[in-house]
Amino acid sequence: MKYRVVKIGGNVIDNPLQLNNFLDSLSASSTNEYKTILVHGGGKIATELSKQLGLQTTMIEGRRVTDEATLRIVVMVYAGLINKNITAQLNARGIKAIGICGADAQLLLAQKREHPEYDFGFVGDIKQVDIQLLELLLDSNIIPVLAPITADSIGQLLNTNADTIASSMASALAASGKKVELLYFFEKDGVLLDIHNPESLIMKLEYSMMQKLQHTGAIASGMIPKLNNGFNALRNGVQKVLIANSAHSSLILQGELAGTSLILE
Amino acid sequence: MKYRVVKIGGNVIDNPLQLNNFLDSLSASSTNEYKTILVHGGGKIATELSKQLGLQTTMIEGRRVTDEATLRIVVMVYAGLINKNITAQLNARGIKAIGICGADAQLLLAQKREHPEYDFGFVGDIKQVDIQLLELLLDSNIIPVLAPITADSIGQLLNTNADTIASSMASALAASGKKVELLYFFEKDGVLLDIHNPESLIMKLEYSMMQKLQHTGAIASGMIPKLNNGFNALRNGVQKVLIANSAHSSLILQGELAGTSLILE
Repeated sequence: MKYRVVKIGGNVIDNPLQLNNFLDSLSASSTNEYKTILVHGGGKIATELSKQLGLQTTMIEGRRVTDEATLRIVVMVYAGLINKNITAQLNARGIKAIGICGADAQLLLAQKREHPEYDFGFVGDIKQVDIQLLELLLDSNIIPVLAPITADSIGQLLNTNADTIASSMASALAASGKKVELLYFFEKDGVLLDIHNPESLIMKLEYSMMQKLQHTGAIASGMIPKLNNGFNALRNGVQKVLIANSAHSSLILQGELAGTSLILE
Repeated sequence: MKYRVVKIGGNVIDNPLQLNNFLDSLSASSTNEYKTILVHGGGKIATELSKQLGLQTTMIEGRRVTDEATLRIVVMVYAGLINKNITAQLNARGIKAIGICGADAQLLLAQKREHPEYDFGFVGDIKQVDIQLLELLLDSNIIPVLAPITADSIGQLLNTNADTIASSMASALAASGKKVELLYFFEKDGVLLDIHNPESLIMKLEYSMMQKLQHTGAIASGMIPKLNNGFNALRNGVQKVLIANSAHSSLILQGELAGTSLILE
């Protein structure tokens, strides 16, 4: 039995047709071979709702600064609207899915981010993963659908990066002796040597090469946290980390290779 | 082993101090004697958010008319904001809780309400309860915290009355041979003979008496659906149905009697 942590981002969530196709692929590939955990990001809905409510969205280093009003919005949009819609769509396809977040049954214990320079507000960094709930659900053939919200030890909800959640959960599953794959789906074909040239896909990216490319500035800054999350997962025993285009999810979920595979060395 | 379905409404949810006290009581009473399911309603937050977004709230017969924009709001507020806050608060008290709704793992299959006169929009009536998920969670000592959102067979989310959800789940648990109690907590001491006189509490309300009081108009119209839900649960084998003041939840959850007990005859 293999375990598969699949992360989808805003480009899938914000596009009903793409989301539909992705959920079709996920349902079609749900065999007895893999146990799947789906992690979703946020997308544009939270930003749009903030705008409608007259709130400013502030980004620092690609992360949303989360004041109290923004926290309410991301909890509503991520753990409510997006999470329950995806879950209901999977259930309608005959796949048993449950929509949860890191705050449920102490799955992910987080801590408010401390940063020497910036105050990110209610942004959480993961301190501990308790995979008991995941195992309970997966053993009963229920797919956990995870929204990127966590809580700290006193029950304060926190906004947490979905890429990091996917990596942490894949790592925790691997640490318990399971064979785990981590798949990041996003809007490009993978890691590109030249972001303006879709033909420049790097099929296998070694850690040392990533460091070099990061040094020369070839890798887009927005890609760095995703890559770090991916390499962390490999270091923690995850067997395969793939960064690929969600448009290719159907093939990839059926085992074909596309996108960028990360390799430690 | 007994099962207890506890429903809290807006008066608890909208008041942080009351909610805190209630969750303290629930945590303190969580012993091995009872397995608890918590169902929560909506409260004022959805109405306030609708207002902020410039949407009209229309009520027919005490039910919120749920157009598409309103559905988004109730899914966000009920299944997101309220649900995850309550769940995180319970987890912080050392109680393992998971925040879900009827759309998760096909727990409650619903159907859009057909009404000869009114169009309630995306309001769902429950067609089927699958208690498998509840049993799985309760057997692992995880308290399910349920938001009043369901889905139909094609994955359309629907706004569903929390009193009815509580009654349906208590009934389904009873049908599987379990000993079940159903507790409705709200802002009054129970069913009152005279709504303006808090001293006029009916301690035991028989079904025949309820019919008479309904006929004479003594029972407030808002109370009728709750009572019908309660009596339905009794007919379906639920052993005890209590309608009581959430301010007394601490005593009641520890087994003391207060409020109105429903009796079939």
